[in-house]
Amino acid sequence: MLTLYHAPNSRSSRIVTLIDEMGVQDKVQIRDVEIHRMFPEGGGPDPANPHPEGKVPLLVDGEEMIRESPAIILYLLERFPGTGLGIEPGAARRGEFLSWIAYYGSVFEPVVMLTRRGIDDPFLRDNYRGLPEAFAAFRRALDQTPWLAGDRYTAADLLLSSAFGWWPEGRPDDPVICDWIDRCLARPSVARTMARDQPALAG
Amino acid sequence: MLTLYHAPNSRSSRIVTLIDEMGVQDKVQIRDVEIHRMFPEGGGPDPANPHPEGKVPLLVDGEEMIRESPAIILYLLERFPGTGLGIEPGAARRGEFLSWIAYYGSVFEPVVMLTRRGIDDPFLRDNYRGLPEAFAAFRRALDQTPWLAGDRYTAADLLLSSAFGWWPEGRPDDPVICDWIDRCLARPSVARTMARDQPALAG
Ligand SMILES: N[C@@H](CCC(=O)N[C@@H](CS)C(=O)NCC(=O)O)C(=O)O
Ligand SMILES: N[C@@H](CCC(=O)N[C@@H](CS)C(=O)NCC(=O)O)C(=O)O
Repeated sequence: MLTLYHAPNSRSSRIVTLIDEMGVQDKVQIRDVEIHRMFPEGGGPDPANPHPEGKVPLLVDGEEMIRESPAIILYLLERFPGTGLGIEPGAARRGEFLSWIAYYGSVFEPVVMLTRRGIDDPFLRDNYRGLPEAFAAFRRALDQTPWLAGDRYTAADLLLSSAFGWWPEGRPDDPVICDWIDRCLARPSVARTMARDQPALAG
Repeated sequence: MLTLYHAPNSRSSRIVTLIDEMGVQDKVQIRDVEIHRMFPEGGGPDPANPHPEGKVPLLVDGEEMIRESPAIILYLLERFPGTGLGIEPGAARRGEFLSWIAYYGSVFEPVVMLTRRGIDDPFLRDNYRGLPEAFAAFRRALDQTPWLAGDRYTAADLLLSSAFGWWPEGRPDDPVICDWIDRCLARPSVARTMARDQPALAG
């Protein structure tokens, strides 16, 4: 049995959604923990969370501790292959799939954070570019196929679209991208995660 | 034949080093292209580089275009398995290995960039933490094993240490970490990449 350390309504919620989409709820136990939150400010690291910085998501599989959403996603997909949520090594579009998963953490999330904080620095801009370039990347993909990495919904769509769950104001003025965001966020798995997280937040 | 689009003395140099370490020079053609550089400012996107933003590294394998260093590394390792530079799916420490590869782009490089630019924002700090936490993460690993993901040098060491190639001032005041950086940067593959890149820079 694997364990996912999860804080309701946080960056680990997308991993809860992935576990649901993959249908591996009986193989990955979800353990709710407290975290420090900035908005509204409060909480703190939970002694029950083995993450060295008190963060979520964290996945534990026996001796292995896996951190960072892109790594957790790739690990779950290869630990439980054949769920249809990934693109397997050797299959067409595997490289694009890996690129999107890496692009999320290495480019898209930094761009979102910098944009939201109003930070505009020439070196950071040169490195990460900005939202227009990110949306152009989405458009290049979505002009070819209905989902980012081809004809079916994958963990790449789940991960990249998750940002618009907590940043709805970030939706661009682009019907193709908004349609994709809507299709991603309308997945029943997303609603189930929200319903699951709700009582924990209220209580 | 795969093609790596590469600009001498840039973020693609570490992929040149990986190709050398893996011994797949006969399977991946390295194609030098120009890029825009910030320091000293100059250059621009090269029409010969198919990367939509004119960046490097970019790996092309038939129909597939793979971007972002972490994705390119994972793709090369699974495309040419058994080189000893990765940790294969299912093997012990696979999860840690994936975590380090993801940590590079999702945390360490943003932290390095923000530190170098002197940007200190409470939300970014909450999200990425800072150099002390990154060095603490290195120490936790290096206190257990000589390399980040176990008893042998892997692409995780190559990727994480690459930052100190272009940011020698970033070396911490920590003998264990400095010893690891030295062992990584003293690999003959690193010297060969530098020797290879030198004439292109001079010319
Ligand atoms: N890069 C990490 C980010 C993890 C992260 O920052 N999670 C937040 C929740 S949204 C957290 O645990 N915050 C608590 C803290 O920073 O102490 C990932 O995507 O997995
Ligand atoms: N996140 C990317 C970064 C790529 C990147 O920014 N490369 C620089 C060279 S160090 C580049 O191509 N700069 C040219 C430009 O931004 O136009 C990766 O690690 O692969």
